[in-house]
Amino acid sequence: MDQFRQPIGTRAGATGAGRRIYDLLRGQIADGTLPPGAPAPSTRALAAELAVSRTTVTAAYEQLAAEGFLVTSAGRAARVASALSAPAPATAAGTPRLASCLPLSRFGRRLADIGMPAFSDAEPLRFDFRYGAVASRDFPTLAWRRAYQAELLRQQDGLCYAAPEGDPALRRALQGYLRRARGLACEPGQIVVVNGSQQAIDLCARLLLDAGDAFALEDPGYLMARCCFEATGATCLPTPVDEHGLDTARLPQDERVRLAYVTPSHQFPLGGVLPVGRRMELLQWAQRHDAWIVEDDYDGEFRYGQRPIDTLQSIDTDGRVIYVGTLSKALSPQLRLGYLVLPAELVPVFRQAKRLADRHAPVLEQRVLASLIESGAYERHVRRMRRENERRRAALLDGIARFLPADAQVSGTAAGLHVVLWLPSLRPRDEAALAAAARKKDVGVYPLSPLFAMQRSQDRPRPPGLVLGYASLTTAQILEGMRILGTIIAATAA
Amino acid sequence: MDQFRQPIGTRAGATGAGRRIYDLLRGQIADGTLPPGAPAPSTRALAAELAVSRTTVTAAYEQLAAEGFLVTSAGRAARVASALSAPAPATAAGTPRLASCLPLSRFGRRLADIGMPAFSDAEPLRFDFRYGAVASRDFPTLAWRRAYQAELLRQQDGLCYAAPEGDPALRRALQGYLRRARGLACEPGQIVVVNGSQQAIDLCARLLLDAGDAFALEDPGYLMARCCFEATGATCLPTPVDEHGLDTARLPQDERVRLAYVTPSHQFPLGGVLPVGRRMELLQWAQRHDAWIVEDDYDGEFRYGQRPIDTLQSIDTDGRVIYVGTLSKALSPQLRLGYLVLPAELVPVFRQAKRLADRHAPVLEQRVLASLIESGAYERHVRRMRRENERRRAALLDGIARFLPADAQVSGTAAGLHVVLWLPSLRPRDEAALAAAARKKDVGVYPLSPLFAMQRSQDRPRPPGLVLGYASLTTAQILEGMRILGTIIAATAA
Repeated sequence: MDQFRQPIGTRAGATGAGRRIYDLLRGQIADGTLPPGAPAPSTRALAAELAVSRTTVTAAYEQLAAEGFLVTSAGRAARVASALSAPAPATAAGTPRLASCLPLSRFGRRLADIGMPAFSDAEPLRFDFRYGAVASRDFPTLAWRRAYQAELLRQQDGLCYAAPEGDPALRRALQGYLRRARGLACEPGQIVVVNGSQQAIDLCARLLLDAGDAFALEDPGYLMARCCFEATGATCLPTPVDEHGLDTARLPQDERVRLAYVTPSHQFPLGGVLPVGRRMELLQWAQRHDAWIVEDDYDGEFRYGQRPIDTLQSIDTDGRVIYVGTLSKALSPQLRLGYLVLPAELVPVFRQAKRLADRHAPVLEQRVLASLIESGAYERHVRRMRRENERRRAALLDGIARFLPADAQVSGTAAGLHVVLWLPSLRPRDEAALAAAARKKDVGVYPLSPLFAMQRSQDRPRPPGLVLGYASLTTAQILEGMRILGTIIAATAA
Repeated sequence: MDQFRQPIGTRAGATGAGRRIYDLLRGQIADGTLPPGAPAPSTRALAAELAVSRTTVTAAYEQLAAEGFLVTSAGRAARVASALSAPAPATAAGTPRLASCLPLSRFGRRLADIGMPAFSDAEPLRFDFRYGAVASRDFPTLAWRRAYQAELLRQQDGLCYAAPEGDPALRRALQGYLRRARGLACEPGQIVVVNGSQQAIDLCARLLLDAGDAFALEDPGYLMARCCFEATGATCLPTPVDEHGLDTARLPQDERVRLAYVTPSHQFPLGGVLPVGRRMELLQWAQRHDAWIVEDDYDGEFRYGQRPIDTLQSIDTDGRVIYVGTLSKALSPQLRLGYLVLPAELVPVFRQAKRLADRHAPVLEQRVLASLIESGAYERHVRRMRRENERRRAALLDGIARFLPADAQVSGTAAGLHVVLWLPSLRPRDEAALAAAARKKDVGVYPLSPLFAMQRSQDRPRPPGLVLGYASLTTAQILEGMRILGTIIAATAA
């Protein structure tokens, strides 16, 4: 509490001379020229010697004293502090300890063993059917910029931490959007805004799973969700998928199961739409096992032909379904905006977890999105994107029909921003080779196998498959990409 | 489930705990909290919640089943007796299960018990000395808007997920900034961009602590860090703080300790600057205990008088210090931008954890910040803010001298954006009353006591204290706020 008697701060750092004096003495203390307890040169002598003002020297001494290198007391010459024993010689300094020797948590150690898909920030290829990418020219740049400027200038009061569950205006806007677009009825109070669906999944993993528990996952399914859940130490129980999505008859009866992660509106990656009968079976299964259901509606906005199917949450009467929505597909995966619609009883603990995780989502972006939804600009944009992607999908199917083998088949064309291409004329092991060969020709196609948790046994043999995302490409790129792929397949099959 | 095939020896009535569980369930069935057909709480969750053995819970369930209140069968969770086989009627949807019966993870259940400071999104008061708030008029709106527009229009290729560790340009810019402003030498490869220091702390908690471990925390200290670390199930070992910061002589010798969280450049909340001697002792302590040090440099940009003191990480020769930086003080807490500077060996696992947590920080904001740092605009802004806050600090000290009792003392004026005000003329219990009375007069002041983990024993009595943040106020508001506070103190002391 002696801060009132602070030295008159005459900025040691401000003058080059002061800085030189500071460095000189720190150097001499470090190399032992000035050993612990030794008196520092008198300020008068040093000032004369270096031809600088005594004030400058004094300021440098004050800095050194403030940092504990010098001990000063009224009327006595400054001395080098005595408690300056350096830490034990750092043999370990440059040489990192082996990861296996690092004192990490069990979670930290598990991360090393999780088969997470390698992240590549390589430039997109010329004809890149990378799933999850969207075209930057599709982004509503002008509307977003206008709204962002408005919100930036609207920043009024003191800027302090905002509500963990998200901006109230955005949560109201999302409630309306979900009712209009997805037939999902909820209260704003059930909505928690997060940094993309990945954080929604991570919060579910942290709050609902423990090591020793188990979770049901679609097989094939979404790898990043599987990694999140497995990182808790829980066991993955892969549940087979057919053309209608999750095969609910084969849901695990394991008593350890606490949660099922599903993509009912457009199964990832195979694209099936879960029929209502299976939805009821899934809900009954969850009730029997007292399990949660995480419903990831990752591209529910993009449905061609029929009206979007009702969400699982809409028919859940038992408060077990956690709905996950994202803006990554309709706007941009780089925004990192998504949301949860929670059973009322889960809201407090998710709110608390979001607050501990990172306090809240960025406020400006939340308000920009809220204003775009309120003005109707967001839904106009989504409709435009749906038409845009329907054109791309048509071009893809056209290109496949024109350039690929006649027995090539496609799954998951009813919705979403990708399809799965099956190539019965090739051998399963050709999958990776094909993708590699395509890459050499600037075409990005992605093998299906890594998305399977179980390597399929003889009872369900399958041809090689490729995941083809088309949301970031022009129809011309799509056609040319398929033409090139056709030539590669011909060469591979030969 | 096999717990229903337990030996019938343990009758529910036999033990008091079993009896209470039996009564709880019968009560909930009677009042409809558990409607017909609803699942009974999982024995696992209930046993954990009530801190009784699972056998005890199981015995109570057997009793209820024997009496026909519950229906149980092998391979199925127990349900309340009923004829229904469809999901429970919609009336059950509204009635949330008791939180104690929710199947949550251990982490989820711990969150409920953590004494997190209540979040308030109440409008700031007219004279609000709320710590952590900054003035929106200080935000470099024009520069930010220009840079944001430029980056928005620069969005080129397909928009796909970006690197988990953060934008390369921002990491290069931060490296240069840290070297210039904090004398911290690191490689861009050691930097991971996160959503504010809160996410940095949460990642440290998840990756470095397990239930049963222990961590050292400054006492008084930063509550949100304490909550994050305690949520892992680790034990907090409060370490006393004096006017020079952490009292390293009193660091715990407990062998469970894995980590110490410290704020050496400006101890939160007392404001001491850790002298280099103690920094060495802290590093030696960490080496002896093979513990990590989390150095939170939450307001290191704001130091008045002397040059900023070197960071712990700069003198760490053993790769144990994790440096945490934030943009919340110099720009805005609503941006949610911060960063970690990691020992090289920790980079891969933090990168992986950030990717699972939310893939990466928003890309546009990262690039905007990078361009502001590269152009020098950011450091000009920080210098402006330092002058601005030095004026506010002077006004605060002036107001305290003019309007508060002569024996009032202030800690932590050498740096940062807040001070601690000590009022020896008041009784400790007046702290909360004073804050409440001030609130009625539109003045926000914040009691110190909640930031103490240990209530201090006689050996270190302390007068009541208030935390006063000043970064969001004008000098006029600060003076008027102190004038009003003076009148309230006079009334309280009388």
